[in-house]
Formats: sequence, structure tokens, C-alpha cells
Amino acid sequence: MKRALLSVSNKEGIVEFAKELKNLEFEILSTGGTFKLLKEQGIKTTEVSEFTKSPELFEGRIKTLHPKIHGGILYKRADLRHQEEVKKYDINNIDLVCVNLYPFKETTLKTDDFDEIIENIDIGGPTMIRSAAKNYKDVLIVCDVKDYKNVIESIKEKRDNEIMRRNLMIKAYEHTADYDSYIANYMNERFNGGFGESKFIVGQKVFDTKYGENPHQKGALYEFDHFFSSNFKALKGEASFNNLTDINAALNLASSFGKSPAVAIVKHANPCGFAIKENLLQSYIYALKCDSVSAYGGVVAINGTLDLALAQKISEIYIEVIIAANVDDEALSVFDNKKRIKIFTQENPFLICSFDKYDFKHINGGFVYQNSDAVDINEFKNAKCVSSRKANENELKDLEIAMKIAALTKSNNVVYVKNGAMVAIGMGMTSRIDASKAAIAKAKEMELDLKGCVLASEAFFPFRDSIDEASKIGVKAIIEPGGSIRDDEVIKAANEYEMALYFTGVRHFLH
Amino acid sequence: MKRALLSVSNKEGIVEFAKELKNLEFEILSTGGTFKLLKEQGIKTTEVSEFTKSPELFEGRIKTLHPKIHGGILYKRADLRHQEEVKKYDINNIDLVCVNLYPFKETTLKTDDFDEIIENIDIGGPTMIRSAAKNYKDVLIVCDVKDYKNVIESIKEKRDNEIMRRNLMIKAYEHTADYDSYIANYMNERFNGGFGESKFIVGQKVFDTKYGENPHQKGALYEFDHFFSSNFKALKGEASFNNLTDINAALNLASSFGKSPAVAIVKHANPCGFAIKENLLQSYIYALKCDSVSAYGGVVAINGTLDLALAQKISEIYIEVIIAANVDDEALSVFDNKKRIKIFTQENPFLICSFDKYDFKHINGGFVYQNSDAVDINEFKNAKCVSSRKANENELKDLEIAMKIAALTKSNNVVYVKNGAMVAIGMGMTSRIDASKAAIAKAKEMELDLKGCVLASEAFFPFRDSIDEASKIGVKAIIEPGGSIRDDEVIKAANEYEMALYFTGVRHFLH
Repeated sequence: MKRALLSVSNKEGIVEFAKELKNLEFEILSTGGTFKLLKEQGIKTTEVSEFTKSPELFEGRIKTLHPKIHGGILYKRADLRHQEEVKKYDINNIDLVCVNLYPFKETTLKTDDFDEIIENIDIGGPTMIRSAAKNYKDVLIVCDVKDYKNVIESIKEKRDNEIMRRNLMIKAYEHTADYDSYIANYMNERFNGGFGESKFIVGQKVFDTKYGENPHQKGALYEFDHFFSSNFKALKGEASFNNLTDINAALNLASSFGKSPAVAIVKHANPCGFAIKENLLQSYIYALKCDSVSAYGGVVAINGTLDLALAQKISEIYIEVIIAANVDDEALSVFDNKKRIKIFTQENPFLICSFDKYDFKHINGGFVYQNSDAVDINEFKNAKCVSSRKANENELKDLEIAMKIAALTKSNNVVYVKNGAMVAIGMGMTSRIDASKAAIAKAKEMELDLKGCVLASEAFFPFRDSIDEASKIGVKAIIEPGGSIRDDEVIKAANEYEMALYFTGVRHFLH
Repeated sequence: MKRALLSVSNKEGIVEFAKELKNLEFEILSTGGTFKLLKEQGIKTTEVSEFTKSPELFEGRIKTLHPKIHGGILYKRADLRHQEEVKKYDINNIDLVCVNLYPFKETTLKTDDFDEIIENIDIGGPTMIRSAAKNYKDVLIVCDVKDYKNVIESIKEKRDNEIMRRNLMIKAYEHTADYDSYIANYMNERFNGGFGESKFIVGQKVFDTKYGENPHQKGALYEFDHFFSSNFKALKGEASFNNLTDINAALNLASSFGKSPAVAIVKHANPCGFAIKENLLQSYIYALKCDSVSAYGGVVAINGTLDLALAQKISEIYIEVIIAANVDDEALSVFDNKKRIKIFTQENPFLICSFDKYDFKHINGGFVYQNSDAVDINEFKNAKCVSSRKANENELKDLEIAMKIAALTKSNNVVYVKNGAMVAIGMGMTSRIDASKAAIAKAKEMELDLKGCVLASEAFFPFRDSIDEASKIGVKAIIEPGGSIRDDEVIKAANEYEMALYFTGVRHFLH
């Protein structure tokens, strides 16, 4: 006689599953709500308290924590001494355990009532899952509604072999680890400002990438809260590991300006083109002008719909990845004969503006963890003009764009913007003046007219040298955090060149 | 009557703890090995099986999974209905639970025997911990030997208040989350090549940093396996968030050459100086020459001991951080009057060459996960000469150094090395030729003679342009992965200039 124990918080599919088990001649044990539901549906089932001859206690806090239950799950079927004890103590075998847990996470999302939250920490459930998983060779452990069908079919077709059982075991420990990780993180968030003694970063695999950052490394994408599986779609091609980090950088930038028709071009996680013009096509055309050489093989992020005209324009050169909010069918067909291009949508790229609350970086032996950086909604508004001249309206628009680009570009950086389009950028360098010089040299190569542009830097200018360089190409306004001991020197330089200079007070290092 | 349940796998300190509990008039319950030890030490204790009137089953698989145990832990002391049930069913209160778990992790480190590993998955222990933690207002949960003393003192001084109990509760769920995370990761490592459906990145806090990457962000360092708490020491100052990532980059580089006297200078996670000369002092002097401007406020990593002479030399300019294998006392005293400098040791920086097996990066909504990159021990040896001229011995030494630096520098990069010292570097740029130009421009500013140097790139040269640039400054040998569709063009250029050209076949993108 086979016996299955069903005790589920989420009742979806459980009736059908129980019926199938009955057909397979399992005796069914169940608890509280599950028992009631199965009985209503006319499925014969034994209540756990009858099976254990022990009452349910303390409003359900104690139901299954009993030797008859865990003995029935945990004894090794092939072990003679275990068999003897089973007989001696009248333990009955439990061969399948189907459990899902009290909705702790869901409870925390809908209430702050700590008693209710604590009550939703499941004790009996994880214990049954862990018991059954430990004895996976003899017991099927089912903790995901999505597995019901496959488990039934496997039993029917006698495919419920050790490998299949082992996979269920792994899933079971992933489930209990995830459950307690969430509890621990929640408690640390609630009582320790998010920086508790232990930190659990838990991801669910979305897909394996072809390889990692380089071909000799394996790689995969893991997500929080179904972020990618519910938002990210591949219309053409597969995202590589490096595509994913570039897409992240490009989308963060393109979606930082509300519903404006922004286009960002990214290479090696840094922007090499950006513009907000009257429409996405114009934005792309101007974004490309900034550094059309680097854009080759780059990632283009479009804060809106990829339509036919834009698709035709993009198809003129080799772009590796397009990521957009939407893609028109006729736009997609433009790339039918282009094998190498990849096209993805992130259903609502505006969504991405709600950055993850925390950010982290691997370093050898551990990781550093921090609150995510973001440009505050009032940061630009609150910037102080410290020069004699004030920026005009057009310059102010450009300053805000430049400031946001600088906040999302690897340090040290300098960003030059003119009429809504980035015209030069220096980034990722160990010296700010070197970044300035490289940016300007590049702009000259691109034959761009920088006269009248504005300049932003993600951190303060330590010397006046970058201002001197800026004057040579006709920079009219500058925005930076300020805070250098030589701020006076920088302000003096700005005034000499009749530039407007704004201090935000907020640094945005990005490494 | 107060009652404590002690069931520990690690017996350290348990006898003393039990004695103190006895002095505080706790009745003591215990299981198997703990019971035996306490009895031997003359401490009166009741065995759990006597308390539950239920036998230990299946070689200890079932001991504490019993309503008498979990009822005694879980009932709410202040709830009238719970009080009634306690009386009716003769449940006795358990007010302190001290449990540590079967050594699952330790078992996996010493054996591959899967039956033994599975047997070391603790079922009863985590259940008691989780039960007691759920009812933390009424039950003290102690799962760390280090807490014994504080718990006893708190009870004595009546400081075992809700906040103290809540902290023990949080620690308890951190402990069970950590335990199951390790199990899940282990199973995925063993059966799914490390890339299972769920991934648990678990760190223990080493310290809070003053702030995160920027002052408006909170930050902290978390470690794996006591990596920092056992190796990393602060002799002067506190490591900031950005210091930690820079130190990581600098140490990875400085320790990549065995016991050679290597010195690396890093700024914004990228090297701006590196040399291996006859001793560390000379190495530092030459490392600084590469870009003495960027080195200002940088991180210096020393693959050996910081002695007096080197300390005096470093103290000539403002370096923010020194990280060394060791620091002589007299060297440390050189910095007595320098307030801003920070000095750390990583006891064995050679250790760091055993990079973490996996690497990960946060992207919005999740993370990408991959095998760590490292330069294989045979990579240089296996590089193929594809030019007419072969490199001479000195050039070969420089090529190996340049190749390793390139592998640890942000893409796109080009690294120029001469006589064991880096003489120019371009990095973090969206175009390789721009990186080349920026590097060469900088070297000219630094008035360095590049003639006779070698060049490395972390990825292939897509065009001959960087080779043409290299020829102008007298590059004699080049190493790169190869693999461009224009490799022929690059080889032709190298031959025209009589350069030696080596292809490794291994790309090292780093973003």
C-alpha cells in the first residue's frame, strides 16, 4: 500500500492531483484545509490527526510534527533494522509528500502586522519537505504545483527513477532555502536596515547563456521576482552574458527620462551615444553621431517602439542588439536577412526606473553590498548655480541630460551634451583630465561641432584643468557635484570663460 | 519550572552552558551524544525519549520530531486557549532551545560518499531552531556557541528582553537559511554543473563601510568562508566600499605572478601602475612612473613586505591605501603623522590567486553568474607566434606580464610593458584604437621612452590601426587572443614593422 501526504497552502491543482493519486491506488493523508477540500470533492482521505492518533494543537501550530509522520517518511525501506522498528512501533509508510508553504512572503507584501507575519512562518511544512527530500530514494517530494502532472505521469510510466527523485530533492532544498532566506532578509530589512549579519542573494534561473563573459566561462542569468521571465522577450537571437550587462546599462540610461523618446547606444557597458530629440528616429540619428565607430556591434536601447523607419535606419550599420519597449512586426521583418542582430523587448522599460533597492559586486572572497544609486527626482532642481552667469533654458535641458548620463557611466567620466544629444564622452579612466582629453579628441575625429555644448562630470573636478580644456571647445555650462578643496579655482575658471557652473552636491561614482 | 532543550552536534562549551542553566534552575532535556556527555559530567538531564515517552527511531533519524517537544516550544504562553490545551494534553514548556546542526558542509569537504553526505542533512535540528525562533517571544533560541555566555548573562541580569530574543530569532533563520542554501548549492554543484535552477549567494558581514560607492548609499562587506575575517587586517584606517573593490583589483594583479616582487597601483578598479623589478622598492618606483598623476589617491598593492625604505618612498606622495602581505613596524611608523593613508594586510596575498570559483554581477532585476575568469597556467606557454620574427627572452618576459595585466583590466584595454614595468595603459573605453591613442598620449605626457616595449590586448585587434599606432612608439612584440576576421591584416602589419606577434586563443573581456 502506497501512501501520499498532501498538505498545501496553495490549493491550485490539488484536487486533480489527489484524484490521480487515488487512481494509482495511493492512500491519501491530509491536513486541515486540504482535508476539507478533498472531502468536499468526494475524495476519500485520512486526516493526519487520525493517522497519528494525536490532536492538532495550538490553532494548527502542531499538526504533522509527529514520529508517525516523520517515521513514515524517513525510514530507509531497504534497511533491515529500520524495517524491524517500523513493525515494532507500528509506523506506516508515507511514499509521496506534497507540500507547499504558508505564504510568508505574500503576507509581508500585504501587511506590516508582525504577529500575522510571524504566524505565517511555516514550521511543519518545511520539516516535511526536508524529511522527504532527505529520503528521496524512497519518497517523492513534490513542492511545486507545476510538477504535479509530471509526477503523476512518471509514476504511471514507471519513470519515477532515482534521477527524477533526486531532481525533486534538489528542488525541495532550493525551496526551503529560498523560504528561510526570504525570512532572514525580511527580518534584517525590518530590524537592521537591510544590512544584517548574513545576506542572502537568491536568484531563479531564467536561462543559461551560451557562455560567460568569455567563451571559456559558463554563464547564466538569474532573476529576482520573475523580473525577466515576465518582462523580457527575445524576438530574434539569444542574449549573451555580455549582452545582458550591456542591455542593463543601456536600458537604465534610456529609461531615465520618463516617456521622452530617448535612445542610448552602449558598448562594453558604457554609453557611446545618447540623444533625446523630437522622435525616436531623430534621437537614434543623433545618438549615432557621437561615436559611430564604437557603436559598431553595440547595444541600442529605445525608450518606446521600434517602428519601420527606425528599423531601416538602424539596419544600415552592424548593431548587435536592439532592446525596445515594443517592436512593430514590419520593423522586425526589416532584419529577416540579418543573421547577427538580436532583438529584445522589455515590456515596460519605464519599469526599470524602479531600480533594485540593493546593488552588489563580487570581490574575491565575498561581495560588497549597498543601496542602489539613483539620481533623485529633485537632484537637478536643487543644483546650485555658483557662477556669475546662469544657464539659459536650452542649456538647462542639456545639463540635466548630461548629469543623468554621467551618473550611469563608469568613473571617471565627463559627458558633453548639445541640443539634447551627447556629442562627446570620456569614461572609465583613472584620471578625469585624461577622460576630458580623450572625449574631445574623439569628438574632433567625428567632426562634431561642440561649440555651445554643456559638460557634466559624475564627481567633482579636482583642478581647473578640465574647465580650461572645456573652454577650448566652447562649453557654455557645467554641472558637477562640487566639494573639491579647489572648488574656488574651478568657479574662477568658469567665470573667466563666462560659463554657467552648477553644483549638485551629489556624487555618482560608478565602478 | 523553566526547561531547556540542548541538542548539539558541536559539543564545544555545552557542559559549561548546561551548568550555568542548572544554576539558573532550568530543567535540562537532551538527546543522544549531548545527553551522554552531560551525564558523564554529572549534570542531571532528562533524555528526550523519556520526556516524550517515545523511542528514538531509525538510527537517530527521529528523535525530537514529536508534539511534546514542538508543543512545548511552540505554544503561546499568554494565550488562554493554548494554556488550556497544554493542560489537557500534558504538554510541558520548553523555554530555551540550544541546537547546532549536523555538519553537512564539513562532511561535503571531507568526503564524496553521497550516503554519508545525505545522512548529514539534519532534519530535527533545523525544525527545533525554526520552532523556537517562531515563538521567540517565549523561547530563547541559541544556535551559536559564541552566544552561550551572553545568553546566560542576559538571563541572570534579566536582560533577556524582546529585542535580545528577536536578535536570536533573526540569527536562527539566518542559520537555517544558510544551512539549506549550502545544501541546495552543493546539490547543484554536484549534479547540475553549478548552474541549478536556484542560486544562493550567501555572505556573512565583516563590517559596515562608512558608506557605499557614494555617500548617500549605505554599504557593507560580506564574506564567504571567513575569507576576510581570517586574512584581512586593518593596521591603519578603515576600508571604504570603493577601497575594497580597488584593493580586490590591485591584489588580484599583484598576486598573479607567484612570489615575484610585484607592485600594482590601482585607481577606480583599473591599474595605472605595475612593475616587477629586482625588489619591491624598485618595483614601486617603476610602477609609479607609468602614471604618477592618476596614482594620486590610489591603492598600492605589494606582493610581499612593506619595509622602511619602501614606506619612506611611498610616503612622498599621497597614496590612499597600501595593501601588503606584511608590514614592518618601523614601516608603519613612517605614516604616524599621515592621517589620510590607510594600511591593510592580507596575510597571504598569494592565497588570492585561488580565485573564487564563481563570479557574479548585479543587473537590475537579478544577476548574471559565471565561472570566474583566470589566466590559465599554460596560457602564455601555449601562445603561438604568428609573425616572422620571434620575441627575444626579455620581450617574452614583458609579454607575459602585459598579458596578465590586460586580463585584469577593464575592456577595452591595451597594455604596454617595458623591462618588467607597465609604461602605458588604455582601458575601459568603447573602442580599442581610442584606448591605444589615449595610452600613448599619456605616456608622452609622462615623458616615458616606450621604444622597445611590448603590447598586450585582452581581446583581438579588429583592425591593423592599433598596430600602426604601436609601430610609431617602437613596440617590438605584441600578444593578443587572435580570432578576428582580419587577423591576416594584423599579422601583415606586425611583419611590416618587424614585430613579434603572438596569439593566445583566449579572450579576457572584463566589464
